[in-house]
Amino acid sequence: MKRVFNFSAGPAVLPLDVLMEAGAEMLDYEGTGMSVMEMSHRSAPFEKILNDAIADLKEIMNIPDNYKVIFVQGGASMQFAGVPMNLMVNKKADYILTGQFSTKAYDEAKMFGDIKVLASSKDENFSYIPDCTNLDVRSDADYVYICENNTIYGTKFKELPNTFGKPLVSDQSSCFLSEPIDVSKYGVIYAGVQKNVGPAGLVIMIIREDLIKDEFAFTVPTMLKWKTQVDNNSLYNTPNSYSIYICGKVFKWIKNNGGLVAMKARNEEKASILYDYLDSSSFYIAPAAKKDRSMMNVTFKTHSKELDEKFVTEAKKNNIVNIKGHRSVGGMRASIYNAMPKEGVIALVEFMKKFEEENK
Amino acid sequence: MKRVFNFSAGPAVLPLDVLMEAGAEMLDYEGTGMSVMEMSHRSAPFEKILNDAIADLKEIMNIPDNYKVIFVQGGASMQFAGVPMNLMVNKKADYILTGQFSTKAYDEAKMFGDIKVLASSKDENFSYIPDCTNLDVRSDADYVYICENNTIYGTKFKELPNTFGKPLVSDQSSCFLSEPIDVSKYGVIYAGVQKNVGPAGLVIMIIREDLIKDEFAFTVPTMLKWKTQVDNNSLYNTPNSYSIYICGKVFKWIKNNGGLVAMKARNEEKASILYDYLDSSSFYIAPAAKKDRSMMNVTFKTHSKELDEKFVTEAKKNNIVNIKGHRSVGGMRASIYNAMPKEGVIALVEFMKKFEEENK
Repeated sequence: MKRVFNFSAGPAVLPLDVLMEAGAEMLDYEGTGMSVMEMSHRSAPFEKILNDAIADLKEIMNIPDNYKVIFVQGGASMQFAGVPMNLMVNKKADYILTGQFSTKAYDEAKMFGDIKVLASSKDENFSYIPDCTNLDVRSDADYVYICENNTIYGTKFKELPNTFGKPLVSDQSSCFLSEPIDVSKYGVIYAGVQKNVGPAGLVIMIIREDLIKDEFAFTVPTMLKWKTQVDNNSLYNTPNSYSIYICGKVFKWIKNNGGLVAMKARNEEKASILYDYLDSSSFYIAPAAKKDRSMMNVTFKTHSKELDEKFVTEAKKNNIVNIKGHRSVGGMRASIYNAMPKEGVIALVEFMKKFEEENK
Repeated sequence: MKRVFNFSAGPAVLPLDVLMEAGAEMLDYEGTGMSVMEMSHRSAPFEKILNDAIADLKEIMNIPDNYKVIFVQGGASMQFAGVPMNLMVNKKADYILTGQFSTKAYDEAKMFGDIKVLASSKDENFSYIPDCTNLDVRSDADYVYICENNTIYGTKFKELPNTFGKPLVSDQSSCFLSEPIDVSKYGVIYAGVQKNVGPAGLVIMIIREDLIKDEFAFTVPTMLKWKTQVDNNSLYNTPNSYSIYICGKVFKWIKNNGGLVAMKARNEEKASILYDYLDSSSFYIAPAAKKDRSMMNVTFKTHSKELDEKFVTEAKKNNIVNIKGHRSVGGMRASIYNAMPKEGVIALVEFMKKFEEENK
């Protein structure tokens, strides 16, 4: 059996222990005589899987009692419409644009109301996070929206924007569970699980109770109303049960490995190994502003496109895969989520040194 | 390792060969050094998985060239809104109500337009399929809607309704791939995969090209526009990639086992074993009208609720599980999808005989 160091931005590397357990349980989950894939979502064993996953997530993130956790389908992209549909009362919302995903969310929200761009880093190809301490948030804005970690550009909000009391909606897809956060600072947190948690096709939402409405400014499909899944413990219809099962295993893996405090320490160490080397090298360029660097997605490039291509090709021969940058920015991107072992980052830096030596 | 006979209505039994392959490939899919769960949806190995799945499905179902196949998230329940949002021009549609799921689809569609009930079997608790040869389809109806197999009640349309030229939209969730069909008779076929195909969280849609629109009578979220996924080969955003992978394996399993002609023969044989016994017994009642009996979901009960409960409890001790009927109708339900082996049905009938002997 071969295993590579998989630096994919998502779907992405999962903990080996979790995959081994899932493989071992494929034909018979805990004596039920069936795979979790084959299990009625209304059966006692699956309800336990679901409820344990929610309880473990609440414990790991220290989620206050006035927040609800739901699992939904459709990807974060579906919530680009779900957010305005559920939250708009005045049909006004303020967006901060720091990359492709916040821009997509903004474009979608414009279908539903009057959207203001509070700040943007598009002027420098989204290589930094704007100062968000004193933005001109509208007094009648229904919410303020951010994408907290920008997978493509390798940037992250190190401080949350001052929303002047408006609910903050954060797409945390690529930094979810990477470090402890204060949930009470948010109105809505949501994340596609396929980057730092589990198999694609599942979105985790954490919603402050007062934002879960049953009256809407639009005709909202039943499945897009957050209240539908809140009222039914995410079992209004058949959920992506296998992904919930794997995510539950990842939550237990996080608990057994020291929780989010330990995840943060591991992630900081891994990111430092890579950034320290990048800062010491004149061969590689790290485009993201230093103050805004992501711990999850590290972007870099050489001085030529040809060398970038050669890097990607030769890396693969060294079992370092999916290191190519997003097509919109080029270069390389190393996604080093929770499940990427330190050994993977060390192997990458060793390869980078060798490649620099051979090509400078 | 224990395996049971799992008669769940969905998520439901999958072919043992498929699960064994998936288990064996959990840490390393075909030498890639990673699980399919960890694989970028834009990588060459995953694009091959996706394109092979689509090609195999087209082959198995003999799908004409003027139909598109897409994989979407959200469950069939999301399409209860997706169908009217995508198809309504005159904002009129005609529905045939034969159970809980067509009724839910009807209730959702009413949010979007003027919906007529063409026919209903609610008068006899959905135990039959109405005569649909000469219904009063409106001349300006945008489509006619059915749920083709009614999981809860154990009935199925043996003949499609005469739609007088209007596009027929069919929810085939619980009969998809159970027998050969003539796709050209439909405008839109869609099915949640978790009954007869694969892991929950994926819907397969087969849509006639002329029904894929880019102008809409409503504000339709990008993710709910069928054209979004048609134009992007189901990769507009990250799909439920692991479910697509398992479904692809099931398509190959069907091909390797004689295709849909052989599936139909197997399913008819299995259903006959069960229905023949039910017809020979005065202890059990089979509520579904004989002419409309489903090959996939066989409903039956005894003469008392207490005995029904005892049946379910004792069946479980004999490795016959998830045999309880839906809470809205009571009794028992044996879902005998493609992957249920004949041995499972024989074991069930043997148990039914024993139970009858002991309790009559």
